[in-house]
Amino acid sequence: MKVIWNNEIVERSEVKIDMEDRGYQFADGIYDVVRAYNGEFFTLNEHVDRLFSSAEKIDLVLPFTKEELKQLLTKLIEVNNIDIGNIYMQLTRGIGIPRNHSYPDPELVPSVFTATTTIVPRDQEKMDRGMSAFTVPDMRWLRCDIKSISLLGNIMAKHEAHKKGGDEAILHRDGVVTECSSSNVWMIKDNTIYTHPDGNLVLPGVTKIMLLKVAREAGLSVKEEAFTIEDLKKADEVFASSTTMEAMPITFIDGNPVGQGKRGSVVERLQQLYVDAVEEQCGKIR
Amino acid sequence: MKVIWNNEIVERSEVKIDMEDRGYQFADGIYDVVRAYNGEFFTLNEHVDRLFSSAEKIDLVLPFTKEELKQLLTKLIEVNNIDIGNIYMQLTRGIGIPRNHSYPDPELVPSVFTATTTIVPRDQEKMDRGMSAFTVPDMRWLRCDIKSISLLGNIMAKHEAHKKGGDEAILHRDGVVTECSSSNVWMIKDNTIYTHPDGNLVLPGVTKIMLLKVAREAGLSVKEEAFTIEDLKKADEVFASSTTMEAMPITFIDGNPVGQGKRGSVVERLQQLYVDAVEEQCGKIR
Repeated sequence: MKVIWNNEIVERSEVKIDMEDRGYQFADGIYDVVRAYNGEFFTLNEHVDRLFSSAEKIDLVLPFTKEELKQLLTKLIEVNNIDIGNIYMQLTRGIGIPRNHSYPDPELVPSVFTATTTIVPRDQEKMDRGMSAFTVPDMRWLRCDIKSISLLGNIMAKHEAHKKGGDEAILHRDGVVTECSSSNVWMIKDNTIYTHPDGNLVLPGVTKIMLLKVAREAGLSVKEEAFTIEDLKKADEVFASSTTMEAMPITFIDGNPVGQGKRGSVVERLQQLYVDAVEEQCGKIR
Repeated sequence: MKVIWNNEIVERSEVKIDMEDRGYQFADGIYDVVRAYNGEFFTLNEHVDRLFSSAEKIDLVLPFTKEELKQLLTKLIEVNNIDIGNIYMQLTRGIGIPRNHSYPDPELVPSVFTATTTIVPRDQEKMDRGMSAFTVPDMRWLRCDIKSISLLGNIMAKHEAHKKGGDEAILHRDGVVTECSSSNVWMIKDNTIYTHPDGNLVLPGVTKIMLLKVAREAGLSVKEEAFTIEDLKKADEVFASSTTMEAMPITFIDGNPVGQGKRGSVVERLQQLYVDAVEEQCGKIR
């Protein structure tokens, strides 16, 4: 398999990450994941813009322009023959020797960029059936708007949910729901769709922004307002959104059914609107 | 130079970290730093205990016993001929392919351990003179008791202080001082020594615990109580503690002098008590 290493496409086996890469020692880096359908990227511009925005927030400079990156990514999915799958990319502040909290001089220490591809089919059965989630306190830092690789808080929350038999963790700060461990979270109450507003506590999800757009265009009632665990438990429908999950119903929370315990009509509508948007960019999903 | 890679001592150039190591993609790992004086470790048991404790808090299992690790570390400083220096060690949850937030089965995916050495002389001149610090909001997660590699919040804070010309960032949550970006912080007021109590907001610093012990044994008044930025600005003396800094006076905060703007007598006393403890384990510092 081929991967991107800095500004070249190489065999995966050629890539060597240094043991003192700051990504490895300090989580000093950022990442993004973009999805391809029918061998075509969906919302590539948005993901590349967000990668550059995340980098800027931690004073990291990408080693290429947005156009150059898009060309590299497009070439990568071609050579790896990715029809439906994810492209993971990350950038770290490079190899700092000796280890030191201070940022090294970027003139002396180049950043390190890597990208891999994975074939990930759409899980239509799960999108129809929904998944279960457990509520977990949000222990993460206060810059969740940065898509950083400093993800230990996220994966620990996901692990808590898994230990209880759930698929996802719904995070909350003192009862106020923020997002899930690897997705944004939404609820529907009396035909209004709610999700936490952007800010420092949640990621500005590309899928979330797309869903907000298509929902509004379709005339649905949407409010970017925070809600609580209590609200969530009385919601008609709940779902999570991410690049891979699209709009994924959450049908059980903490072991209790949401509404009827099955996918509701508003989520089903949003799933279709999202597919329409995908198909507009990538052609009819095979 | 030699390093430890898993349970062997190898040439540094032989070590290859995988681009999908979970330490690199999720900051899914922990670390510790132990210091040697005169070629002998100081508080090795305490650092090894804390490494194991950090691992346990994130459900990671070390690939060796404490005794085996101590033997490996001792051999490493011998072969690298470290008279005075630091040994950095870290453990990650290994190579998870494809990338997935879920913890992989440890039976299938072994963890990855690495350790390096760096010669770091004592900076006696700085310990006499003191350093300057700037106050920065504590944006980190709520499990700062875990010595994890998820350190982006720490290094961003340090960078904020550096941009203003300071050496260290003093972190606070809504005005309550927690710790520094890579050290614990203390203040002295009316001959009583204060530092934040252990808990989820601060690291249980090995140097902090040693300083508490020697201070109490010497009959000094010590309180493990939180204090505010306002308290700090009226303090008689302020200092930071860490494995490398020992007890380092902070003589300027946000550009204003602490007390007389020079090292005070209580910090000087603590520095001597700490050196006494080092010399008891490692012999007279050369």
